[in-house]
Amino acid sequence: MSFKEKLDTAIEQQNSLLCIGLDPVLDKIPSHLHNEQYPLFSFNKDIIDATHDLAVAYKPNSAFFEAYGAEGISQLKMTCDYIREKNPAILIILDAKRGDIGSTNEGYVKYAYEYLQADAITLHPYLGREALGPFLNNPEKGCILLCRTSNPGAGEFQDMHVVGDAHVRPVAFYKYIAEQVSKKWNTNQNCMLVVGATYPKELKEVRSIVGEMPILVPGIGAQGGDLEATLSAGLTEKKSGLIISAGRSIIYSSNGQDFAEKSREEATKLQKAINTQRS
Amino acid sequence: MSFKEKLDTAIEQQNSLLCIGLDPVLDKIPSHLHNEQYPLFSFNKDIIDATHDLAVAYKPNSAFFEAYGAEGISQLKMTCDYIREKNPAILIILDAKRGDIGSTNEGYVKYAYEYLQADAITLHPYLGREALGPFLNNPEKGCILLCRTSNPGAGEFQDMHVVGDAHVRPVAFYKYIAEQVSKKWNTNQNCMLVVGATYPKELKEVRSIVGEMPILVPGIGAQGGDLEATLSAGLTEKKSGLIISAGRSIIYSSNGQDFAEKSREEATKLQKAINTQRS
Repeated sequence: MSFKEKLDTAIEQQNSLLCIGLDPVLDKIPSHLHNEQYPLFSFNKDIIDATHDLAVAYKPNSAFFEAYGAEGISQLKMTCDYIREKNPAILIILDAKRGDIGSTNEGYVKYAYEYLQADAITLHPYLGREALGPFLNNPEKGCILLCRTSNPGAGEFQDMHVVGDAHVRPVAFYKYIAEQVSKKWNTNQNCMLVVGATYPKELKEVRSIVGEMPILVPGIGAQGGDLEATLSAGLTEKKSGLIISAGRSIIYSSNGQDFAEKSREEATKLQKAINTQRS
Repeated sequence: MSFKEKLDTAIEQQNSLLCIGLDPVLDKIPSHLHNEQYPLFSFNKDIIDATHDLAVAYKPNSAFFEAYGAEGISQLKMTCDYIREKNPAILIILDAKRGDIGSTNEGYVKYAYEYLQADAITLHPYLGREALGPFLNNPEKGCILLCRTSNPGAGEFQDMHVVGDAHVRPVAFYKYIAEQVSKKWNTNQNCMLVVGATYPKELKEVRSIVGEMPILVPGIGAQGGDLEATLSAGLTEKKSGLIISAGRSIIYSSNGQDFAEKSREEATKLQKAINTQRS
């Protein structure tokens, strides 16, 4: 099945645009899990058990597992395996922000798609389309290119105006990336963009450039992005096309025995708030 | 010791600007190693034993280890531990091309500096200085920012001209990155740039922008970069300031029992060719 079909099916089956970021940090997870053999996995498993009917995707960020070395990576794999087992309709987005020369990207492809069996990966666009061929050439897997990131200093390069042959007037770099990806990179209909919820104005501009292309929106919750502004700026005419990601605000809503239950409450609230504005 | 001191000391002690890329692929390493318990590590170990007096740095690329999941990461750690044990003067550059928002970069910092105990890491500049704080704020560790990469399609974004307040005329994006990093990001003197040997003209321009800042140059060997052109374009007035990286052309110079010996021959040739042009 193509990535596009997988995503469309998941949105419909789950009736959700919510993506839950799985970013476990030992210091932050409930203390009763610290003595488990696989504390990161145990934490994720309980969150998945509690929320798998609410989300269209889980987004584990590789950094939080790499921090614990081989042990962490093995718990990331257990997490991905468990998501597929629990609910095969949910997408796994590996948030890894990779991007190297082509022959090296083959290694990352193996990590993301053979080892973890993720459905999509986040990527840096800086090396250009040619280098990202090993990702882009596979229609079954999604390529989520960084466009306008959610961090406070995102504008340092992303707001620079670039002068391209096709432009009479200079255009902001993040918009140029949106144009290139939507018009030239997306021949397999497997591309998405990352635009932070912390920048609704920019999200609106990106939406106007990319048409129906789905956009992954981190920054809701802990980073302070506004949900309503995000949805009005980014939903397509069909009231879809966004994957709204929240991590810390859901998974750390309690650090007691009730953390999974509380994460379900937060996820339910967010899923409903999104769906209310879609209808 | 600061990263700058470590690097200067390593160049002097090893009398070398050569960096060896450790990018093991199971299909490419000698067949007699396939039955070892840790084939990637065994391969690296023999290369390290044969070349550790010739190189200023080893540069394992994380992708080649991640391709084998937790098993691969554990062999990457064994490789880094072995380099330090064999010759503590040699730098370990983790080629990982990371770059995320600040709180996530903390995870990568743990991976690179606590778990692997690398001395430096390669980074994507796209999220800007603010996001890369967890790397940049540590004067003991090197931050090697992608500037002009070695791949054929590098120019797609890197050659775009950007219009900044400080510029009367538009300047190529990779040059703007060189300016920002050298003039604004390098307060801890721990920054370097990546410029591919496949682009000597661009290397010369970057050198003229960054003064004495060290530059990591991949692309010699398998990617076809020209050594002489690279050295004349990139050496500083003191005939230093470059770390010349070669991987495949050294580590895969034979796939027989003699692979380590052959890798030593290739590394020796390259180290000498570099030093001849420095003197």
